[in-house]
Amino acid sequence: MEEINQFRKLFTNYLSQQAFDRRPHELYEPINYVMNMGGKRIRPVLVLLSHHLFDDQVDRSLPIAYAVEMFHNFSLVHDDIMDEAAVRRTKPTVHHKYGVNTGILSGDVMLVYVYHYLGLTGQEVDLPMLIKTFNEVAIKVCEGQQMDMNFENTDAVTLQEYVKMIELKTAALLSGSLGLGAISGGASQKDVHHLQEFGKCMGIAFQLQDDYLDAYGEQQKVGKRVGGDILQNKKTFLVTKALEVADAPLRTKLLSILHDKDLHPDRKISDTLSIFNRLDIPRLAKEHKKIYQEQGLQHLEAVDAPAVKKSLLEGLALNLLEREY
Amino acid sequence: MEEINQFRKLFTNYLSQQAFDRRPHELYEPINYVMNMGGKRIRPVLVLLSHHLFDDQVDRSLPIAYAVEMFHNFSLVHDDIMDEAAVRRTKPTVHHKYGVNTGILSGDVMLVYVYHYLGLTGQEVDLPMLIKTFNEVAIKVCEGQQMDMNFENTDAVTLQEYVKMIELKTAALLSGSLGLGAISGGASQKDVHHLQEFGKCMGIAFQLQDDYLDAYGEQQKVGKRVGGDILQNKKTFLVTKALEVADAPLRTKLLSILHDKDLHPDRKISDTLSIFNRLDIPRLAKEHKKIYQEQGLQHLEAVDAPAVKKSLLEGLALNLLEREY
Repeated sequence: MEEINQFRKLFTNYLSQQAFDRRPHELYEPINYVMNMGGKRIRPVLVLLSHHLFDDQVDRSLPIAYAVEMFHNFSLVHDDIMDEAAVRRTKPTVHHKYGVNTGILSGDVMLVYVYHYLGLTGQEVDLPMLIKTFNEVAIKVCEGQQMDMNFENTDAVTLQEYVKMIELKTAALLSGSLGLGAISGGASQKDVHHLQEFGKCMGIAFQLQDDYLDAYGEQQKVGKRVGGDILQNKKTFLVTKALEVADAPLRTKLLSILHDKDLHPDRKISDTLSIFNRLDIPRLAKEHKKIYQEQGLQHLEAVDAPAVKKSLLEGLALNLLEREY
Repeated sequence: MEEINQFRKLFTNYLSQQAFDRRPHELYEPINYVMNMGGKRIRPVLVLLSHHLFDDQVDRSLPIAYAVEMFHNFSLVHDDIMDEAAVRRTKPTVHHKYGVNTGILSGDVMLVYVYHYLGLTGQEVDLPMLIKTFNEVAIKVCEGQQMDMNFENTDAVTLQEYVKMIELKTAALLSGSLGLGAISGGASQKDVHHLQEFGKCMGIAFQLQDDYLDAYGEQQKVGKRVGGDILQNKKTFLVTKALEVADAPLRTKLLSILHDKDLHPDRKISDTLSIFNRLDIPRLAKEHKKIYQEQGLQHLEAVDAPAVKKSLLEGLALNLLEREY
C-alpha cells in the first residue's frame, strides 16, 4: 500500500494548498473546517489511480480529485443536517458547530466550487464530457439520499430497491471518481465504462460489508456501537433480505421487534440477530458481497491498461473489502 | 413592451417543455412545483435580450435562460428555509409544502441541473468561459445571502457594506444573466463587461427602489404591508443611510425605536418614518437610485450593438425602475 499512500500524499498536499479565505468568513470557515477534517480520501485517490492507468502525469487530475472530495463533503454537510447528526469523524458536524443556515449555505457554495475545480482541468480534457459525467453522478447521489429518506417511513422496501438506493447514494460517487479520472487520463469510452462498473460493484460490495459489520463486527474494529443500524431501524441488506425470505409469521415477528419502542436496546439487537441467524442472513450477505466483488474485478480485468497499474486499484479495493472478514 | 412579451413567451414555452419526471418523485415534484409557480421571468428574458443584441438566433440561449431561472429558484428554495418563510408568490414555500429535508435536497439537485442546462448550449459557445462566468455569479449570490444573514445580528452596517450586500445578493444574478446571454450571442469581452455593469447598476437601483417602496409605496401597488421592512428590522438603504447621517442623539433614538419590542407596530412605523423624513432620507434614496440608473444606462450606451435592439433592454429596465414614482 506504500504506492497508494504516495497518491494520497499527492492529494493531501494539493488539498492543503486550497484555502478559502474570501469573505464573508462565516461562509468560508466551515469549508476549511470540513475539508480539513481528515478521512481516508478514498474518492480522490480513486481519481488519481484511474488517471494513472492511462497517463503518468497524475497531477493533471488533482483538480478533479479535489472536486470529487469537495462534492463528497458537500453531501455530508447537507446529509448531516437532514439526519440531524451532531458528530462526524469524532468532531461536531458543520451545522452543529456553525448553525443550520450556514450549513445549508456553505454546502451550496461548496457545490459551486466543485464545478470551479472541474473547470480547472487542462485543455487536453474534454470539459463538456467531464461535466456531463459529473452531473449524472451528482444527480444519482441526490436521488439515492431521497430514496434513503423515503425508506425511513416504510417497511415495504424490496432488496432490489435497497440495492438501487446504495448504488445511487454510495456507489455512484466511487464509480464516478474512477470514470472522471479515466476521462482525465484520456481513456477510451469502453475503458471509462469498465472502470465505472468496477467502481459501482465495489461500492455496492462495500456497503453490503458495512451493513454486515454494523451487526456482526467487533465493536473495537468497527469503531461504533454494534447493532446501531438495528436500533435506528435503518434499512440494510440484512433486514431487507430477512423480510424478503422470512415466512409470514417470522416476518410479523421481526417487524414487531423492529417497531417495539419499549424493548430494551440489547434485547432488540439480540432478538433481531437471532432471526437473522435463523434465516442464514450472514451467509447470504457474504455471498452477495462476493458476487459484486467478483463482478467488479472482471470489469477491472477488461480495462486496457498495464497490469501493474491495475493491481494498485485492485489492491486498494480488496483492502477496503477485506476488513474483519 | 409587446416585443419583450414575445421573448417571455419564447421562454415560458421552453420552460413548459421541461418536465422533471424522474424518480424518486419526492425529489422532482418540488422542482416542477417551484419552476411553474410563475413570476416575471426577468432573468431569463435578460439572457434572451442580451443574446439578441449580437445574434438573431435567440433560441440558442434558451438553455442558459432556463439555467439562470433555475438557479434563481434554487436560491429562493434554500433562502426560504433559512428565512423560515412560509409563503412565496401567494403559495406555500417548498419546504413548507414538502418538508425542510426535501427542500434542501431538491434545491441541491436543482443546482446540479443548472450546470446540466448550461452544458446544453451549442458548440459555438465557449463552455468553459460560460461556466466560469456563471460560477462567479453563483458564488456572489451565496456570499450576499451570508452577508444578509450576518446583518441580522448587528446595527453596525455601513451604507457601503449594505450596497455591497445587495450587489452580491440581488444585482449579481441580473448582471450575470446579461453577461451569459452576451457570451451566448458571441459578444466581445468589452461588451460582456458593459452589459454586466449595466445589469449590476440596474440591480442595485432596483433594490434601492424596493427599499423605498416598502416604506413609502402605496399598499395596493406594493402588494404587501407598507413598513414591513421596518417591522422586521431589516437592513435597507433607508435605515442604513439614516444611521449614517443622524447625529448621536437621533441615532440613539432611532435604534431604541427599532429595538423596542413593546412598541405598537403602527407607532413603530410612523416614528421611524418621521426620523427618515427629518433626515431627508426619501430624497437621498431617490437620488442614489438615479445615480445607479444613469451609470447603468451609460454602460448600455457603450455596448456595440444596434440601437433598436438596445432600446428593448433599456425599455425593460426603465419599466422595472419606474414603478410608483
